[in-house]
Amino acid sequence: MRALVLSAGLGTRFKSEKPKVMHNILGKPMLWYVLRTLRELNIEDTALVVGHKAEQVKEYFGDSYHYFYQSNPKGGTGDAVLSAIDFWRDYYGYMLVINGDSPLVKPQTLKNMQRYLHMVEEYEGIKLSALLLSTQLPDPTGYGRIIKDGKGNVIKVVEEKDASFEEKLIKEINGGVYIFYCPHLIETLFNVKPSPKTGELYLTEVFSLMHEKDYVVRSFMAEDPTEVLGANTRWELAVAENIIRLRILQEWAEKGNTIHQPESVWIEPDVVLEGDVEIYPDAMLRGNTKIGRGVIVGKGSLLENALVEEGVMIEAYSIVRNSHIKSGAIIGPFAHVRENSLIGKGSHIGNFVEVKKSFIGEGVRAKHLAYIGDATIEDDVNVGAGVVFANFDGKRKHQSYVGKGAFIGSNALLIAPIRIGSYSFIAGGSVVNKDVSDGDLAIERSKLRILKGKGKEKLLE
Amino acid sequence: MRALVLSAGLGTRFKSEKPKVMHNILGKPMLWYVLRTLRELNIEDTALVVGHKAEQVKEYFGDSYHYFYQSNPKGGTGDAVLSAIDFWRDYYGYMLVINGDSPLVKPQTLKNMQRYLHMVEEYEGIKLSALLLSTQLPDPTGYGRIIKDGKGNVIKVVEEKDASFEEKLIKEINGGVYIFYCPHLIETLFNVKPSPKTGELYLTEVFSLMHEKDYVVRSFMAEDPTEVLGANTRWELAVAENIIRLRILQEWAEKGNTIHQPESVWIEPDVVLEGDVEIYPDAMLRGNTKIGRGVIVGKGSLLENALVEEGVMIEAYSIVRNSHIKSGAIIGPFAHVRENSLIGKGSHIGNFVEVKKSFIGEGVRAKHLAYIGDATIEDDVNVGAGVVFANFDGKRKHQSYVGKGAFIGSNALLIAPIRIGSYSFIAGGSVVNKDVSDGDLAIERSKLRILKGKGKEKLLE
Amino acid sequence: MRALVLSAGLGTRFKSEKPKVMHNILGKPMLWYVLRTLRELNIEDTALVVGHKAEQVKEYFGDSYHYFYQSNPKGGTGDAVLSAIDFWRDYYGYMLVINGDSPLVKPQTLKNMQRYLHMVEEYEGIKLSALLLSTQLPDPTGYGRIIKDGKGNVIKVVEEKDASFEEKLIKEINGGVYIFYCPHLIETLFNVKPSPKTGELYLTEVFSLMHEKDYVVRSFMAEDPTEVLGANTRWELAVAENIIRLRILQEWAEKGNTIHQPESVWIEPDVVLEGDVEIYPDAMLRGNTKIGRGVIVGKGSLLENALVEEGVMIEAYSIVRNSHIKSGAIIGPFAHVRENSLIGKGSHIGNFVEVKKSFIGEGVRAKHLAYIGDATIEDDVNVGAGVVFANFDGKRKHQSYVGKGAFIGSNALLIAPIRIGSYSFIAGGSVVNKDVSDGDLAIERSKLRILKGKGKEKLLE
Repeated sequence: MRALVLSAGLGTRFKSEKPKVMHNILGKPMLWYVLRTLRELNIEDTALVVGHKAEQVKEYFGDSYHYFYQSNPKGGTGDAVLSAIDFWRDYYGYMLVINGDSPLVKPQTLKNMQRYLHMVEEYEGIKLSALLLSTQLPDPTGYGRIIKDGKGNVIKVVEEKDASFEEKLIKEINGGVYIFYCPHLIETLFNVKPSPKTGELYLTEVFSLMHEKDYVVRSFMAEDPTEVLGANTRWELAVAENIIRLRILQEWAEKGNTIHQPESVWIEPDVVLEGDVEIYPDAMLRGNTKIGRGVIVGKGSLLENALVEEGVMIEAYSIVRNSHIKSGAIIGPFAHVRENSLIGKGSHIGNFVEVKKSFIGEGVRAKHLAYIGDATIEDDVNVGAGVVFANFDGKRKHQSYVGKGAFIGSNALLIAPIRIGSYSFIAGGSVVNKDVSDGDLAIERSKLRILKGKGKEKLLE
Repeated sequence: MRALVLSAGLGTRFKSEKPKVMHNILGKPMLWYVLRTLRELNIEDTALVVGHKAEQVKEYFGDSYHYFYQSNPKGGTGDAVLSAIDFWRDYYGYMLVINGDSPLVKPQTLKNMQRYLHMVEEYEGIKLSALLLSTQLPDPTGYGRIIKDGKGNVIKVVEEKDASFEEKLIKEINGGVYIFYCPHLIETLFNVKPSPKTGELYLTEVFSLMHEKDYVVRSFMAEDPTEVLGANTRWELAVAENIIRLRILQEWAEKGNTIHQPESVWIEPDVVLEGDVEIYPDAMLRGNTKIGRGVIVGKGSLLENALVEEGVMIEAYSIVRNSHIKSGAIIGPFAHVRENSLIGKGSHIGNFVEVKKSFIGEGVRAKHLAYIGDATIEDDVNVGAGVVFANFDGKRKHQSYVGKGAFIGSNALLIAPIRIGSYSFIAGGSVVNKDVSDGDLAIERSKLRILKGKGKEKLLE
Repeated sequence: MRALVLSAGLGTRFKSEKPKVMHNILGKPMLWYVLRTLRELNIEDTALVVGHKAEQVKEYFGDSYHYFYQSNPKGGTGDAVLSAIDFWRDYYGYMLVINGDSPLVKPQTLKNMQRYLHMVEEYEGIKLSALLLSTQLPDPTGYGRIIKDGKGNVIKVVEEKDASFEEKLIKEINGGVYIFYCPHLIETLFNVKPSPKTGELYLTEVFSLMHEKDYVVRSFMAEDPTEVLGANTRWELAVAENIIRLRILQEWAEKGNTIHQPESVWIEPDVVLEGDVEIYPDAMLRGNTKIGRGVIVGKGSLLENALVEEGVMIEAYSIVRNSHIKSGAIIGPFAHVRENSLIGKGSHIGNFVEVKKSFIGEGVRAKHLAYIGDATIEDDVNVGAGVVFANFDGKRKHQSYVGKGAFIGSNALLIAPIRIGSYSFIAGGSVVNKDVSDGDLAIERSKLRILKGKGKEKLLE
């Protein structure tokens, strides 16, 4: 079987410069979901029909797909399929045709459609000319209705606006996903006439032509009607995103992770939870984040491309981006770890602390109000409150190094490039711009002067 | 047409000192929504019936409305309408009567009611004595049922407690919004008797009196049953707030803005999104906030009366209040900009930085742990981590000025009032309490002393 | 009446080391909710059947319950009830049997079941052998169906897999909560045979045995079908948590508190709101938190074991743990108060400020970027931005004391142990490591040196 994905839609109602299929759902273009679904099927070859800003689509999805260009953006679905005629003209098999803005169709449903085709071949001895995905809606208003004959074969699909009163009562609607037998498609598609109203060539017109030729067309009903929802406005995009999000969350919960207030949690499709993870409300897990066993992800945490090892505690409102947190570490609350940082085992990066592009060893404590940038900090260092690693001198960035077991007193300023030796002690409030050797104490401080009675004077007089 | 808004309700079940109609929905009293809806209709004159703490209502809504005082808080809806008799006694037209706690009725529905009245005048040649807004509920328990004759005219409205078994089966319920023809109202309302049980005068009693006089009363069914929901408890208030919130969100999404997890996003009714805005979960946009094209509003951001120009990036967990962010700036994560601050083009206010009542030029970086208060900072200044503008001396606030391209080293303290010249350099950790001229370097620092072996001694012995 | 709670379930589908009933809902094990419900009934004595990791259950719930051990974790519900035979063998009364993973059953429903039993005794003169809680589901697939005779008595309960086509059409399903008359239970339970398929002893088998003996079994239908939902996967646990959460929120709203976006708010069962509290979205109230009248709980706040007095304002994204906030104080935004701290009346703990194990008097301002640990701060003190109380010297923690009305300049560092006198003034940026007497001014600062032209040189050359 081959697959053709119609991705040229202008998405006028999206009011966007971007191609519609490139709008994101959980950090991935909606087309990505359609292609992921296809990858789970047995498809030999997949082509995309692209149009408006085609290069954006090609750039993202690369050359494992064939691309065909639909020159008339208002040509309609039939025109879109014809644009790719070189893909299927000489193919004597089935071709799945799906819209790039149908991210909710499930792989299992398409597999069931494939299986149904094979069953019909085997038991009825025929090839279906087309199999349509359909569903039943309590209120089918607005959707194309599927008209069948007494034997259950599809005679035609009627759009809402062309439907008679009786046809409007039909609740089985067209889901916009089709499997065609290509030789029959080619026989009929060229005979479709443009709509007199819109000038578009509707793909759904082939069904009545097939029926006239006594070819057999059937419909296959999706169990879950949300599968056939498309995304024609950004509101529908938000709805689709929610449906996909809840599917992901339910899957992780059923694999043995606890998710509180799932409707508030965001987990992107490439994230991995290793089990027994506990996720608090409003957490957001993005990109290639991987969360180890027993990790607690606190309320409102934001993890992106984070590798979090087992037993880590991410406290509320912490951000970890492109970094690695080793087992048993505590992050937050209100911490920000970013740009290829590594936090060692059992270390604690706490309140209002930012760590950027730094290597932090084991058992390090930086629990309050600190900025650690471009630094290497060995095991068991204590970074006091208010400490700043001054990595920027106005022109360029420099590196800092702090040896094992050193103590950086509060409000100290380390001016990079600098090397602070192990078990050294930096007195609170000191500005240190020279290296300090192992075991030494560095202090930069003036004499404390006490002026009798001058405080009260300043405050009260 | 005139309108009368019944806003005297005690809201006993709200258990509040405030008048019920003054309880907020998305930052506005629920009465505001009713009055906004009326403004979209063709209404000549609007009056409010007020009661408990009337002055709070008058103060908020001002004197573009007539106010009438209902002296008996338990007088009932009939008594409320009679309290405003001077407003409609001599009026030979239609009057819309609506409750101030019905914020969900849509303007289009009321317009349709008006149109229906005119159609009846035109095609049937009569004036309706009353047109009631109704709806159908699958479970109508608790609501007043609308009893009609064979011709579809309303005979009476029966409260749940007075309804017979057959009447209880009726699913069309009274929505509490009426348009009366005033001459017929005055003929009947004075004949309504107080309820023997509660002593209240029910406005709905006029319908059977109208029917007795062979006046015609009709009902008009709202398509969306949520429109007629009132807010009688704070739980119902929360439900109403959610419904209005989702209506606002859907509208902005359909206008071409991306809203992730819409059920988590809060946008107040006066907020404006200029298109292609991307809003992440848990964002809250309040007051007169205006968001330019292409802005990204990060997770959990809180913007109130913020003017945010195009292309700005608001990172997660940032707060902007009463301030203006110019194009291309980056705010956050964890930043707080407040009190008439202005952030210039392309500037970056970052992690744990607070900016208060300050003017920040273009290309300024204050990316970590800083407090900038009462300052003017020119273009291209670098504010290091841990820098504080000390604007308060224990008695009053003072201003600071930093010239173009200056570099304020980390942990520096600038004691206001102060003027730091352009392209000057403040060494890290310095306390500066004197002006620094253009191009100068200021340093306040003692000699760094290194005590051999004393660090290890302090830490390990 | 006695009660037996079946809490031995392995919860295989939870994929967890913890006993299933110990998984948390809003900070309490799900079994806690079942036991709380039982406490509201008139139950003489309650026993728990425990299994896997029984000691965790015993440790949490203590010895006000009888515990019985089910040795065969796959013995089935009948075996579980038999494990506790010593609890009910000689009891000539009714025993309620409920699963420990049924946290959603409401006390009122069980009270109604008790009342029904007494009504049957009184009016029909019989004791029911069993009363089953049931409910009707539109789609009963997967649940045990309740089969009745023409008189409405229960003949048997059939599991989905054993149900005939006609039985599958029955929509009344078994809710898994039973009241048994013990003498009849003992007569029948020993005759139940293990399932040939699973080897389990199903408690529901007793109903057909009771029917054979002409004993009367009835079902009692729960009005709200969500009551009978169990938690067999962590997804169902999340659903149950949401249902309980919304019940709690609705209750507090109806008692006169305003809750915005209730579906985003988390309030644990032991929290108390004293009325007229306004809770913004994403707030989380945990443990024994108590919130006084008129308090505003800002967006995303996290309060755990917090005592918050009336009129306090908790600004957005603030965390208060195990601390007491006195009336009129302002906390946040982005503040963190923890470990037995007390914040005095009208004090303001602001942006990026952490307070740990400290006593803060009245009218204190610490509004920006400060760390206050192990300190006592008297009334009217001003703590500047960037101030750190250095409580840790590398080996141990020390205390600080600041007298009334003192002014701690920005970026100052107070090295504990230290005592700062009242109305003293600590100059900005000073490191203070000696006590300062009342009214004195302390300053630790070097001479400010200005190097002409050196700034520009450093920056531009």
